[in-house]
Amino acid sequence: MAMDATHVLHMNGGIGKSSYANNSSLQQKSFSLTKHIRKEAITSLYRSMLPRCLSIAELGCASGPNAFIAVSEIIKIVEKLCKEMNHKPPEYMVLMNDLPGNDFNNLFKSISSFKEKLSNELESQIGPCYFYGVPASFYGRIFPNQTLHFVHSSYSLQWLSKVPEGIENNKGNIYMSNTSPLNVLKAYYEQFQRDFSLFLKCRAEELVEGGCMVLTIVGRRSENRSSKECCYIWEVMAKALNDMVLQGIIKEENFDTFNIPSYTPSPSEVKLEVLKEGSFTINSLEVSEVKFESEKCESFNDSGYNVSQCMRAIAEPILVNHFGKAIMEELFYRYQEILNDHMSKEKTNVINVTILLTKKPYERF
Amino acid sequence: MAMDATHVLHMNGGIGKSSYANNSSLQQKSFSLTKHIRKEAITSLYRSMLPRCLSIAELGCASGPNAFIAVSEIIKIVEKLCKEMNHKPPEYMVLMNDLPGNDFNNLFKSISSFKEKLSNELESQIGPCYFYGVPASFYGRIFPNQTLHFVHSSYSLQWLSKVPEGIENNKGNIYMSNTSPLNVLKAYYEQFQRDFSLFLKCRAEELVEGGCMVLTIVGRRSENRSSKECCYIWEVMAKALNDMVLQGIIKEENFDTFNIPSYTPSPSEVKLEVLKEGSFTINSLEVSEVKFESEKCESFNDSGYNVSQCMRAIAEPILVNHFGKAIMEELFYRYQEILNDHMSKEKTNVINVTILLTKKPYERF
Repeated sequence: MAMDATHVLHMNGGIGKSSYANNSSLQQKSFSLTKHIRKEAITSLYRSMLPRCLSIAELGCASGPNAFIAVSEIIKIVEKLCKEMNHKPPEYMVLMNDLPGNDFNNLFKSISSFKEKLSNELESQIGPCYFYGVPASFYGRIFPNQTLHFVHSSYSLQWLSKVPEGIENNKGNIYMSNTSPLNVLKAYYEQFQRDFSLFLKCRAEELVEGGCMVLTIVGRRSENRSSKECCYIWEVMAKALNDMVLQGIIKEENFDTFNIPSYTPSPSEVKLEVLKEGSFTINSLEVSEVKFESEKCESFNDSGYNVSQCMRAIAEPILVNHFGKAIMEELFYRYQEILNDHMSKEKTNVINVTILLTKKPYERF
Repeated sequence: MAMDATHVLHMNGGIGKSSYANNSSLQQKSFSLTKHIRKEAITSLYRSMLPRCLSIAELGCASGPNAFIAVSEIIKIVEKLCKEMNHKPPEYMVLMNDLPGNDFNNLFKSISSFKEKLSNELESQIGPCYFYGVPASFYGRIFPNQTLHFVHSSYSLQWLSKVPEGIENNKGNIYMSNTSPLNVLKAYYEQFQRDFSLFLKCRAEELVEGGCMVLTIVGRRSENRSSKECCYIWEVMAKALNDMVLQGIIKEENFDTFNIPSYTPSPSEVKLEVLKEGSFTINSLEVSEVKFESEKCESFNDSGYNVSQCMRAIAEPILVNHFGKAIMEELFYRYQEILNDHMSKEKTNVINVTILLTKKPYERF
């Protein structure tokens, strides 16, 4: 049975040790590498449209401190432009989207401190700023027709809407791997194509003419779908799970029916879907690389620890849904051990594919 | 120090025995008494405007099953109108507002079942329906200029933005009472005037011309501000607290500094603020009365039980904030005992003031 990610996938909530709020430094690093793209996009958009109310959507915002980074950047740039142009700042409508299982309570509690910080940094009163939570899958329509100006999404679009169908023969693996049969790699790619093109179609209906999107997706450089650069992190998880099967802690059948609903595309795969869908102009397509460890971990002298915590924040809900809560401590302990070994031998970087798209003019009838 | 209700006031979250989700039958009864007002309002609005995207705001939605009742009614009426008029249904933008401490997670989890129920009841596909959470105080701007069509609020506007200042001499009481000094009654009324007129001013800016509001406020018939009909429920709470002071469980000082940030206005007080503010036409102003006990309680043969549970769902967060969690079981046990006694002697009804307002045309310059 193919798992529908809508009801299961979400980052760990709250603010505890394994929460996404405390384990998202990887994303923070990636933000600084893609800042110039967002700056270029919002500057050009604001100058050409001068909207009275600028609507910004953050898709897959999760609940941690990263949720507001892009929004904050965008507002700062617009406020600066307004000063330069001697304009009254616009109203801002900020739409924070994630799946309904996301910890929106935690997110909402941080809005007031976010606003305060922003006002302090700008040393001035900013335009009125309205925050909404949008609890729904972005693989479907989530906003009314032609109401968005700027869409941002980071580290979310590598998640599929569901586990691809017909991959029962992906034994010993939980994701694509170099031991996966060809039909598995094909099924994953086709699910990505369906999901990403639906995403593009929906956003094209929601964006105003000239509106834009900056999307950062965890991906790969290689055209090989089972390339180590994107798959090793799940291969390590498969190894930990497999060890637990061998020791009778997890049933083999249970392991064999588990697969991760994710796809890490190459730049050309992303580009192809955009061209096929046809609603957007590609203004920029970049690849960047982030080292998968946080500054904190150096003090532990244990590079696996933070990667493991980070993966736990991301993957625990989906693992709990399939394997139950009881084995999580054990699983992540083993995962961390294998990672430590792996990371002492090989570099463990995460590849980001970032694309800037502009909505083409609507066809007139 | 005047308590700012924004950071403290919220209904009990979750779905437990004392949750608001399980103790809001009073509101449900009041809904049926005011249905004709909402029907009149939305029918007239839809016929005159025919919006392509109808935006509906539910202010003070809390997290329970009542949150969607009005929205559901409104959508059904519009869908029926569309069929009659042979129109394509509009898109719906549903804006669910409450304070940031509200349990939005619980609310969001029920959206999909709400949509399913609505589709089943209508036996047809409804227009696209987008749900947003709006975590902010409605005593301030929470939506962009001229973007709302229909505002609904039930059982929320009797909450003030804060405890009135200068009521230190309201000893032995936690709300207005017939033993409250005159300055206390005056301070409560003035806080209501400030809050309600600010509410009207903000909504006037957010509503489109011809947009409307249906507001149901817990109030009173009498012009006497300390009338039993609105104050007894807090007088009983004051008695329970006072008993605990006398027995040394609560410090007297702690009791003396606690007051409820609420005001239960008369129809004429509501009307006066609307006329003074000037942005709205009053289409209807009604008073209705709901018996304060649920059907469930009859099986307990204990009329105080459900009222006490209901008040706990409403008031516990604010009481915990001042007195701490430890005394809550004891307090509500005593509260229920006194209520049982009271309810066996007197009728305990809740008075609702319901007003239908339409936004006047903007002045042209």
